Amino acid sequence: MMSARPESIDSEPCEFSLDPQNWEAFRNLAHRALDDAIDSLENVRQQPVWQPVPPAARNHLNEDVPAEGIGLEQTYEQFRQWIFPYPTGNIHPRFWGWVHGTGTAGGMIAEVLAAAMNSNCGGRDHGALYVERTVLEWCKQIFGFPVDAGGLLVSGTSMANLIALTVARNAKSGGNIRQSGLLGSQPRLVAYASAEAHESVAKAMEILGLGNRSLRRIAVTRDFRIDLDQLRRAIAEDRENGLQPFCVIGSAGTVNTGAVDDLQAVADICRSNDLWFHVDGAFGALGVLSPEVLPLLKGIEQADSIAFDFHKWMYVQYDCGCVLVRDGKRHGETFCTRPNYLQRLDRGLAGGGTWFCDYGPELSRNFRALKVWFTLKQFGTAQLGRMIAQNCHQARYLAASIRDLPDLELLVEPTLNIVCFRFVDASLSKEQTDDLNCTIVAELQEKGIAAPSTTTVNGKLAIRVAITNHRSRREDFSLLLVNVVQFGKQLLVAA
Amino acid sequence: MMSARPESIDSEPCEFSLDPQNWEAFRNLAHRALDDAIDSLENVRQQPVWQPVPPAARNHLNEDVPAEGIGLEQTYEQFRQWIFPYPTGNIHPRFWGWVHGTGTAGGMIAEVLAAAMNSNCGGRDHGALYVERTVLEWCKQIFGFPVDAGGLLVSGTSMANLIALTVARNAKSGGNIRQSGLLGSQPRLVAYASAEAHESVAKAMEILGLGNRSLRRIAVTRDFRIDLDQLRRAIAEDRENGLQPFCVIGSAGTVNTGAVDDLQAVADICRSNDLWFHVDGAFGALGVLSPEVLPLLKGIEQADSIAFDFHKWMYVQYDCGCVLVRDGKRHGETFCTRPNYLQRLDRGLAGGGTWFCDYGPELSRNFRALKVWFTLKQFGTAQLGRMIAQNCHQARYLAASIRDLPDLELLVEPTLNIVCFRFVDASLSKEQTDDLNCTIVAELQEKGIAAPSTTTVNGKLAIRVAITNHRSRREDFSLLLVNVVQFGKQLLVAA
Repeated sequence: MMSARPESIDSEPCEFSLDPQNWEAFRNLAHRALDDAIDSLENVRQQPVWQPVPPAARNHLNEDVPAEGIGLEQTYEQFRQWIFPYPTGNIHPRFWGWVHGTGTAGGMIAEVLAAAMNSNCGGRDHGALYVERTVLEWCKQIFGFPVDAGGLLVSGTSMANLIALTVARNAKSGGNIRQSGLLGSQPRLVAYASAEAHESVAKAMEILGLGNRSLRRIAVTRDFRIDLDQLRRAIAEDRENGLQPFCVIGSAGTVNTGAVDDLQAVADICRSNDLWFHVDGAFGALGVLSPEVLPLLKGIEQADSIAFDFHKWMYVQYDCGCVLVRDGKRHGETFCTRPNYLQRLDRGLAGGGTWFCDYGPELSRNFRALKVWFTLKQFGTAQLGRMIAQNCHQARYLAASIRDLPDLELLVEPTLNIVCFRFVDASLSKEQTDDLNCTIVAELQEKGIAAPSTTTVNGKLAIRVAITNHRSRREDFSLLLVNVVQFGKQLLVAA
Repeated sequence: MMSARPESIDSEPCEFSLDPQNWEAFRNLAHRALDDAIDSLENVRQQPVWQPVPPAARNHLNEDVPAEGIGLEQTYEQFRQWIFPYPTGNIHPRFWGWVHGTGTAGGMIAEVLAAAMNSNCGGRDHGALYVERTVLEWCKQIFGFPVDAGGLLVSGTSMANLIALTVARNAKSGGNIRQSGLLGSQPRLVAYASAEAHESVAKAMEILGLGNRSLRRIAVTRDFRIDLDQLRRAIAEDRENGLQPFCVIGSAGTVNTGAVDDLQAVADICRSNDLWFHVDGAFGALGVLSPEVLPLLKGIEQADSIAFDFHKWMYVQYDCGCVLVRDGKRHGETFCTRPNYLQRLDRGLAGGGTWFCDYGPELSRNFRALKVWFTLKQFGTAQLGRMIAQNCHQARYLAASIRDLPDLELLVEPTLNIVCFRFVDASLSKEQTDDLNCTIVAELQEKGIAAPSTTTVNGKLAIRVAITNHRSRREDFSLLLVNVVQFGKQLLVAA
């Protein structure tokens, strides 16, 4: 077929491309960069967990937009000097800040291959879509969702929550909200989540035009789980006041303490009140892979929708999260549009099954399914489940070690993988204790020793250790505690 | 400091990691994968532009979630067999479907480095954030936006449009929409875009709770630009009817034909009506890099917000788009929240300037700024502008060639880089012509020759060629036309 090429027509002399003029030189540089990348992972334990970007590097980066390029070789050299030494730190064995996954070495290979294919996963008929479909089927199997459920890979749980709540809003609002919007004489839609629920839920309510006041923040019990009595009462009161309850968001692993709501009870409340049951399981949901953690999550399989991340507790490279929606038809009805330029055909590139642009706000989408597929194929669910369990064991080990040290106070008994504690001394006021612990965390980070983060638990500033790190060892946690105590005592003396 | 490690505490014997047990073997595999990836780009011209995923590969992919892993080597082998041969095709010199950028070889290096660093760009203080800030500053310079403008890198223009319209809605609605939502006695908010505007604008209106009926689709003139008189009239009528116009979306490059609205006139209308002026410049906006295209875009520098993609006409790997908002303060006020677990400090990892989670719905975000930084550093704006101009020249060359061929009808004179045409024959009805051209496109794709897509222009099914491809040569377009005519005639005979 290629013989049809008309030989008589020449290229315009000035036509050029952005491809390397010398592929061999490009190949050498690419291999050098890959070696540097692998070195950075193989030797990460010998590096500081974090170091600030020095003023010199900032100044170099803070330049005007370049009119003339400097070529790939020099670009790489500048990257190596100004950018590469300053990662977030979550690749390091002693990073436990916020909830950041570690990534894997294999995930790096998946990313270079995805970059080579450069697929656009909004739709059409090509390999990447089959991989995304496979990954979504696997997720349905993992969570016991029906085969006709809907799903989508997204950047993370914040986006997944937004998508799930859009489906919930449209499903429960009655009327044709896609056409007519929220204005009019509808009763106000209200949703419910615990006071410990992630802020992205409130943000989604704002974007959706429902307002964050329409998210009732239900108090938690002493173990930081949603208070079921107060939840029932709030729903009943809102009904009596003419409002329209439409959704409860259960937390499977709160960001502060790792608490898991009683999802079975929340499911029952949703069923008896005809409410959408959404689970924000950003990191906790994948606990279902561990037989030890699974019982804690009972009820998640009854959710109308689940949001979770692969880049947290499946250790996949940033970014990749997922939303599953039990009613796949409703999921599609919420987002599907068919303009002329996206017309789907029976054959050719415009064919194929599911077009993922029909299931969320994004049209252009990269091939993030590949790194998830690589991770599940390489390790399997069993090994990933064992790693999740290992992180939970490490949290319990850390909590036990804290209990053994008189200068430290354990603030919450860990449910999953999050430990909140602090340095205490009888001579310190509440404010002084808060400030001192803030300083300890900053010192740990700035000296490159460890990277916990902070939060507030029961009004107390906490050193917070969230373990979604496959490189951590028990000795890393011991090193953390030795240093917390040492810094605490040094700071006490200095004060 | 590391000497503080307590030597007496052993690792739990069963502790394991997901790192390679043999880094040398991993390194070998990674280099092999990289060579395969580079080969695929270096030799892409010799490959079919697209081929369907064969049933055997689909069947292999369609397996149950693996409980036990098969290791990285075998995972890669399966990828090579079942996935790698089936990209979307946009890396190929003869892919012109929809508006898909090509990606670059250097972008692949950027992606492997980003995967190694595995940064989470939601916030905190680390190298990736400085790169994103730099890239955003460069965008402000490119579009003549003030230094205190807001901005965010996102997956693409669909997300960018959603973010910009959220800011616009909140800015123009009055009252505290974040808290209270849209319900209440507010007048209905309405927005305006041409009938040729991208569907993502309507989708954003739906997600925001405004409803797509509140997006007025204003008719276009014969050159597919928004009819300014009708726009003025619609705004006045809505005002008279007690509605609240809040935003006009100007198109800088429509997806069907590449038409650019008269942005200067739209800017004037917005100013005199106190409306938010948003520009959807998915691919067209970066035309400002070419002195030839720049005059077409006059007025874009006056926008309140601009949405555009790097993965289209800057040839950056998928995915990466951008939203700029002139009023950076308002941008932050729309999305910023400060829960305890995201507390920002003066020092350490929780310090730093802009936290990008304050500027959009995402908290977890990958390091997509790096590939943009690499592209602009490697090539500079001047060379990228010349490449954009080259694509426009190719579109004019293609249009001229079509005009020379009696079997082909040029449906629209190209403004930028999109050419719509079709095969015609006096013996065919309108429906037959539409069907035949659909079949021609499918044949071109299935035979791996070229990948245009289809759309409908003035009610006629069009073969649509959108050139955001740095690998295309004039001979590629000639090959396309030879084959369109040949297939058309073969199909005529067969019918």
